[in-house]
Amino acid sequence: MELQTAKGVRDIPPEEKILKNKVMDTLREVFELYGFMPLETPILERFETLAAKGGAGADSDVLKETFTLKDQGDRKLALRFELTTSLARYAGMNPTLKMPFKRYEMGQVFRDGPIKLGRYREFWQCDIDTIGSASLLADAEILGVVNNVFKKLDLNIIIKINNRKLLNGILEQAGIKEKESAIIALDKYDKIGPKGVISELEQRGYSAKQIDSLFKIVTDSMSLEDLQKKINNEEGLKGIKELEELFGYLKTMKIENAVFDVSLARGLGYYTGTVFEVYCPDSPVNSSLAGGGRWDNMIAKLVGNNNDIPAVGLAFGLEPIMDTLKSMKKATTKTASKVYVLPIGTITESLKIVQQLREKDIAADFCLGKKGVSKNLDYASTLGIPYVMIIGDNELAKKKVLLRDMNDGTEQLLTLNDAIKKLK
Amino acid sequence: MELQTAKGVRDIPPEEKILKNKVMDTLREVFELYGFMPLETPILERFETLAAKGGAGADSDVLKETFTLKDQGDRKLALRFELTTSLARYAGMNPTLKMPFKRYEMGQVFRDGPIKLGRYREFWQCDIDTIGSASLLADAEILGVVNNVFKKLDLNIIIKINNRKLLNGILEQAGIKEKESAIIALDKYDKIGPKGVISELEQRGYSAKQIDSLFKIVTDSMSLEDLQKKINNEEGLKGIKELEELFGYLKTMKIENAVFDVSLARGLGYYTGTVFEVYCPDSPVNSSLAGGGRWDNMIAKLVGNNNDIPAVGLAFGLEPIMDTLKSMKKATTKTASKVYVLPIGTITESLKIVQQLREKDIAADFCLGKKGVSKNLDYASTLGIPYVMIIGDNELAKKKVLLRDMNDGTEQLLTLNDAIKKLK
Repeated sequence: MELQTAKGVRDIPPEEKILKNKVMDTLREVFELYGFMPLETPILERFETLAAKGGAGADSDVLKETFTLKDQGDRKLALRFELTTSLARYAGMNPTLKMPFKRYEMGQVFRDGPIKLGRYREFWQCDIDTIGSASLLADAEILGVVNNVFKKLDLNIIIKINNRKLLNGILEQAGIKEKESAIIALDKYDKIGPKGVISELEQRGYSAKQIDSLFKIVTDSMSLEDLQKKINNEEGLKGIKELEELFGYLKTMKIENAVFDVSLARGLGYYTGTVFEVYCPDSPVNSSLAGGGRWDNMIAKLVGNNNDIPAVGLAFGLEPIMDTLKSMKKATTKTASKVYVLPIGTITESLKIVQQLREKDIAADFCLGKKGVSKNLDYASTLGIPYVMIIGDNELAKKKVLLRDMNDGTEQLLTLNDAIKKLK
Repeated sequence: MELQTAKGVRDIPPEEKILKNKVMDTLREVFELYGFMPLETPILERFETLAAKGGAGADSDVLKETFTLKDQGDRKLALRFELTTSLARYAGMNPTLKMPFKRYEMGQVFRDGPIKLGRYREFWQCDIDTIGSASLLADAEILGVVNNVFKKLDLNIIIKINNRKLLNGILEQAGIKEKESAIIALDKYDKIGPKGVISELEQRGYSAKQIDSLFKIVTDSMSLEDLQKKINNEEGLKGIKELEELFGYLKTMKIENAVFDVSLARGLGYYTGTVFEVYCPDSPVNSSLAGGGRWDNMIAKLVGNNNDIPAVGLAFGLEPIMDTLKSMKKATTKTASKVYVLPIGTITESLKIVQQLREKDIAADFCLGKKGVSKNLDYASTLGIPYVMIIGDNELAKKKVLLRDMNDGTEQLLTLNDAIKKLK
């Protein structure tokens, strides 16, 4: 039998998983610092839930890439392709949930789509969402989390911000009624440039006049002040007002790396207000490290309720964050172990010593029968363990251990207590 | 549309997920203390890999409960039903891996089987395995991890230990050639008692004479010394020797809660030496909290190699551990937040203050536009947040904040610095 993984998925080896855990720990720490609580929803969902109107699955492109399966009772199931729809289902199923409900979730999502560099069929999303608050303070708080996370990860970022109401207003002003399709085209502005967007809008059936007036507004208006003079419809003006309020909060919170970007749209159909995306300008990774926005209608549509349940959230992309950290050499740890204990004919005494190290919270690896000093030193070196503790009869007779620094090859004969101090 | 989860899966709400994270953090901490490194394998595997000979999937009962699906390229895939087969595949695909390779993995596994209390179709396994070492030190080290984990979780446990070579020797002695089927029956000893096992052995076609001599050896021989006198075949004696060596290491490591149990078998077919299971005698949860053993042949069989790659490992059952902790009231935290900041007409100043708290690593929640003091106090109380910081114009004028202890309702007017000291 040929051994291989399924197409489009991969193993994460230890040195990479150590980094991934570090990033996820940072995310969790900051999420909880801002009062978000963990939720776990299952990977398996009913197909019906994921395909529901108002959700991302209503977009046929997403649904086409959804892995489907059946259980033994012939029920149609699917692997979740994002975490948001499951949150909306959870909120719908728990009507007594105290609002605002601030939750985070980190887990695998699945898409049976084309594979390219950095794009997998099984990948992780780390989401924070606040549901049940229409206040722009909730939007600001999410950007507070973003700012704090990337500060802790020591990455320089830019947060691009726009607003769907403003975008709708601009499209309205340009005489465009069929807005959703135009937004999907506009979302590619950063990737394919204005010419690309124009030809895509043409393909999507917009007239030259519509496209022309749209671009006049978009390209000439780089600031909110400019736009305020041009927009004369209610929705557009509401969008501008929301953006001004949000930027006010960000100023109070001393978040200075946030900028207004009129071309930012976000592809998914369910956004209703603020949209944002996070980039690292120093990184060779072009894709965004995080993105999100307001989605005030989805839960009500799923639940079949007339009252909207407002929501705002953001997803961190673990893969682009890790690729950025790796490319900027901010990742070095290969192992968690501090020391490798090597008995030379002294298994019983050495076993006692390695247990003492672990009791003192020193991560310690132990020789499991590998023969020969040089083979063992080579093993510890390959694993990147910084120290080897050699324990032979000579050392025991002197009530000492030999501690070898794997970095420079120096060795010191120390009492166990002194060795512990050094390893701490 | 009716909102519900897929059959047999469930949502883990925040208060439960906080506990789950705590347990998983403890596991990770101890795993790394013992030199195990994290690995992540995908949930999606090729069906062929999971069904391979020598693996657990060769057991038709397991394979029948495997969720299968196809990708758009019509490739047959499956959701993993355990983590061990994926580790074997990983080792087979990475022949230059430094041995011994000590890894841990925590993740969801899936079984499309009958549902009962505490039994789900999507559940978590937390595995540690050492591959590439035949030394019983590796078995002892795994039990060291077990002992350390449950000490940190403050749970009193018993580790039951047996050995498949010894079991094979006992079966040999009883004239039983078809051993695997008898072992599956014997594994139920704890659940269905001797009578149940006897009738199961009868159903599986063993003769009265075979069953009789098997039970004579099993029930009368509760110690290794007893067995040593009775067993006269090589495999059985080898099993006894291995057990004696292992118990010697455990004594050195001061692991005193490990006992020999001749009726312990473990159901899966791939075990080759030591087997162990962990129980909490104080808990209303009857099922084992962890279990595992040696599986020296599986990797070679998967890879199609003539040389065995020895391996020993153990899986922690997150669900029974959590059920035990909950039933023993060792779980109390409802939220990570220390304080809820409530501005009364002072949003800008309060927003500055909540950001200062977060900078000082104090997990702080912030009022997102909910109106009225009593509604906000009720919200903080439901979430289990221990303090509320009330900030009105009066407080700001005095350069103070009002800190309310939600436990006893007392309030103190403090400077921000004093409040921070109290919250730390």
